[in-house]
Amino acid sequence: VSAIDEAATELARLPGIGRKTALRLVYHLLRQPEERVRALARALVGLSERVAPCSLCFNYAERGQLCQICSDPRRDRTVICVVEEASDIAAIERAAEYRGLYHVLGGRLSPLDGVSASDLTVEALVKRVRQGGVAEIILATNASVEGEATALYVQQALEPLAVRTTRIARGLPVGGDLEYADGVTIAQALAARREM
Amino acid sequence: VSAIDEAATELARLPGIGRKTALRLVYHLLRQPEERVRALARALVGLSERVAPCSLCFNYAERGQLCQICSDPRRDRTVICVVEEASDIAAIERAAEYRGLYHVLGGRLSPLDGVSASDLTVEALVKRVRQGGVAEIILATNASVEGEATALYVQQALEPLAVRTTRIARGLPVGGDLEYADGVTIAQALAARREM
Repeated sequence: VSAIDEAATELARLPGIGRKTALRLVYHLLRQPEERVRALARALVGLSERVAPCSLCFNYAERGQLCQICSDPRRDRTVICVVEEASDIAAIERAAEYRGLYHVLGGRLSPLDGVSASDLTVEALVKRVRQGGVAEIILATNASVEGEATALYVQQALEPLAVRTTRIARGLPVGGDLEYADGVTIAQALAARREM
Repeated sequence: VSAIDEAATELARLPGIGRKTALRLVYHLLRQPEERVRALARALVGLSERVAPCSLCFNYAERGQLCQICSDPRRDRTVICVVEEASDIAAIERAAEYRGLYHVLGGRLSPLDGVSASDLTVEALVKRVRQGGVAEIILATNASVEGEATALYVQQALEPLAVRTTRIARGLPVGGDLEYADGVTIAQALAARREM
């Protein structure tokens, strides 16, 4: 049935979902009441319609609003933790150690993938720091080759502003993704951060 | 962000997808162009709108049409293979051994889950056989306790009609699900079917 093929093909585009898993999901959905399937579809479309980058830090936010962290008056606005992806923020928040703000670069320098500095939000970060009131920038890009290169690039871009710039410790396994690290490792990495 | 929570909650309802995987999928979708997310949502809604049970065998079919197998003139209409779920048909078709028609019961007898004979399409099967032209019924319910009980129930319902009724061999691992069996095992199980 073509509708089954189409749904399986779309689901199989998702990371970690192969053709067989996609078909299993489709058969599951076919057994659900129509309202459940519509709720899922609506929630997915809601991602595109209702989520937009925070105008300050580029974290995910309700469209037209600052993100939950930037709009929280209890956060320490003098520290900015720089991460590659918005999904890294959830990992750091899980460690419940860090009370400052964030800045999402939107990727890492990667010439092979055609990602250069102009694709990242480094300029917006420099502007944030230039506006004053920032005491420290913590570079929390991944511990991969690209993550290290990106941290170095951001540090150099910030150098003229004479702001304290630190790098989270290599508590992460080398080559590891921040998003999958456990809270204790992330907390240790934050505590052992060093001057760059 | 509430839209992210909602999408993750809906995705985590799917079988085999936990909260962490759901979030990973959401972050992936947030990085996709809006058109891709809409295509996925549309394909899912299409399942409810365009798929309906075949009026002859209860396999999945385009709404208002016979299924691909019942409408195929090359299939042997004298043999009917009885399965629990429509998804079992794909598994048997993968074995490329069987050329007859199917009948989908829509489940298995399971008093604990409140599934009784009246929830299954046994009566419709009896009606199909009564209309004549059927030489053999192959009972291909799962090799589980409920699957065996269901096969026995169907066999007894067909007894007055004196149609040849066979059971696929226990080539499947006992307790195993037909949907996940490989083609060779299914082919052997079909070849070694026995009179009931």
